[in-house]
Amino acid sequence: MDLSEDELVRAVSRLLSGSEPGVVVGLGDDAAVVEAGAGQLVLTTDLLVEGVHFERGSISAYDLGAKAVTVNVSDIAAMAASPRYALVAMGMPDAVEAAWVMELYGGMRDACAEYALSLVGGDTNRADLVVLSVAVVGEVAPGRAVVRSGARVGDRIAVTGSLGAAAGGLALSRLQAGRAAEALSQPWGRALIEALERPVARVGEAQVLARARASAMMDLSDGLTKDLSRLCDASGVGARVDLGAVPVSGPLASGAALLGVDARSLALSGGEDYELLVTMPADGVGPARDELQTGFGVDLSELGEITDGTGLTGVDADGREAVLEAAGWDHFAGG
Amino acid sequence: MDLSEDELVRAVSRLLSGSEPGVVVGLGDDAAVVEAGAGQLVLTTDLLVEGVHFERGSISAYDLGAKAVTVNVSDIAAMAASPRYALVAMGMPDAVEAAWVMELYGGMRDACAEYALSLVGGDTNRADLVVLSVAVVGEVAPGRAVVRSGARVGDRIAVTGSLGAAAGGLALSRLQAGRAAEALSQPWGRALIEALERPVARVGEAQVLARARASAMMDLSDGLTKDLSRLCDASGVGARVDLGAVPVSGPLASGAALLGVDARSLALSGGEDYELLVTMPADGVGPARDELQTGFGVDLSELGEITDGTGLTGVDADGREAVLEAAGWDHFAGG
Repeated sequence: MDLSEDELVRAVSRLLSGSEPGVVVGLGDDAAVVEAGAGQLVLTTDLLVEGVHFERGSISAYDLGAKAVTVNVSDIAAMAASPRYALVAMGMPDAVEAAWVMELYGGMRDACAEYALSLVGGDTNRADLVVLSVAVVGEVAPGRAVVRSGARVGDRIAVTGSLGAAAGGLALSRLQAGRAAEALSQPWGRALIEALERPVARVGEAQVLARARASAMMDLSDGLTKDLSRLCDASGVGARVDLGAVPVSGPLASGAALLGVDARSLALSGGEDYELLVTMPADGVGPARDELQTGFGVDLSELGEITDGTGLTGVDADGREAVLEAAGWDHFAGG
Repeated sequence: MDLSEDELVRAVSRLLSGSEPGVVVGLGDDAAVVEAGAGQLVLTTDLLVEGVHFERGSISAYDLGAKAVTVNVSDIAAMAASPRYALVAMGMPDAVEAAWVMELYGGMRDACAEYALSLVGGDTNRADLVVLSVAVVGEVAPGRAVVRSGARVGDRIAVTGSLGAAAGGLALSRLQAGRAAEALSQPWGRALIEALERPVARVGEAQVLARARASAMMDLSDGLTKDLSRLCDASGVGARVDLGAVPVSGPLASGAALLGVDARSLALSGGEDYELLVTMPADGVGPARDELQTGFGVDLSELGEITDGTGLTGVDADGREAVLEAAGWDHFAGG
């Protein structure tokens, strides 16, 4: 590192300076002081670790910084809450250059601007690998948070956007160089990498779904089957999923052959899509779909219903049913 | 790891269960939902990384968990605020046993109980080394936070407790085995290790100092000279430090010869004491000292005054002055 800790803090403070609404004491003191709104507080934290969540050589510092903020904002969004303040604690090896750190903070700053939250705390430490921990404080009107445990038998299950693109991007990034270059020469290849490195948090979309009487909601970080299982467990219910209705990412479908993956499989089990998984009464789905399409240009796909019992059941195009494992739908491959 | 992520989350949830005041949605959802108080919010985060901040073999999981919470509480205390909620994000290798993780959470839970805050969020990830990131949300009456930038020329400088014990504990932990065992057979040796591994956050003490019209305050995490320099820089002032008045840890003084360290040097430059560094009008010091002694059994040592100009000046027993570098006071060794 070519700057001391104090020099880095000053440089970061300049980068992040500006009179942010609600911030009484920003970066550089023991802690930040901010104004609380009238609602309940919504709190979340997520850690990104080099070698597990990202490779320093394959994602830009800017995108990494933006993603670290965005995945936390996505958790706040999934409660139907609004993000307000972000804190970041990071560790990095001495060999990391100050320019890289500043670019990282630049990505965090721009993501904060996009989602209207203020970055109020930063703590930089030495570590043997890059570690990026962000915490976000959000706000929600009292009693209006949408939790995972509210799904009721008969509710419809829906997801925003399409699924599997981030997992497709991960598969692409693991191709040997020649095939990766071929994939990246295609629009679908660039779209898959973009999905992996520049996820979008569905803040406004979650508000629409909450108003449409969402009974349970969460963001899809670990894959549809795994996350839907969690939602069902929390709600004490089961789910029946119409496999043909799962919205497979278009770029993933285009690239599946070259990538050597099964697109529908990745849409069911691939992580990091950060789309919203929601349950709601049947008559709420249509109006919500229209509003999401009109307001955000985002699809809402209805893909099944909440049942009594436990676990997930998949239904294929021929109406055949089978247990849908949280790991994916591979049992169906030979069906 | 002998538990899956979901099993671990359930085990942790059981460990942390209990109806905590103000917690609407606790562990296990996308984010926690809590009630906000009437005050301003105080936000901080700190990261502990294996190999930099601790060695897994030398500190117990319980103490590590407690320390991760305590150092964040110390930052909240240093603003004269009250801690309310904690979030933790951690990474750890697959080889770490679930029992170790549960013990870590046990330490966090007990530290949260001691300082009256609720642990509301936990995120556990795989990583190539143990990484522990805690964020704490506190509360302070509007306008009552004590920042670093409020020191005024003529204010007295004081610190709580005594200094250098944690640095002494670190020196002890680096001794070769035979000498370490000899040190640990002594009360002072055990006291130094305790100071390093079980720091205490001065929450109540900070409230006393704030009422005694503290003009600036911070916690001592990086050593007196470095942290006092930061406080002075933030306030646009200088400081004159009476070197003989710096309260050297008793156990450190007892063990310095065996440890091969200069006790006064460590008291000036050693980190991780988590004592409070405060500036206040001269007539505030005596009453604050009495109240801290009566209420907490904690000393308050007056060790100098805020001056105009910049930088730190050290004054030795003979009244000689010299620049006191933020790195320590080694210039004085031959004085």
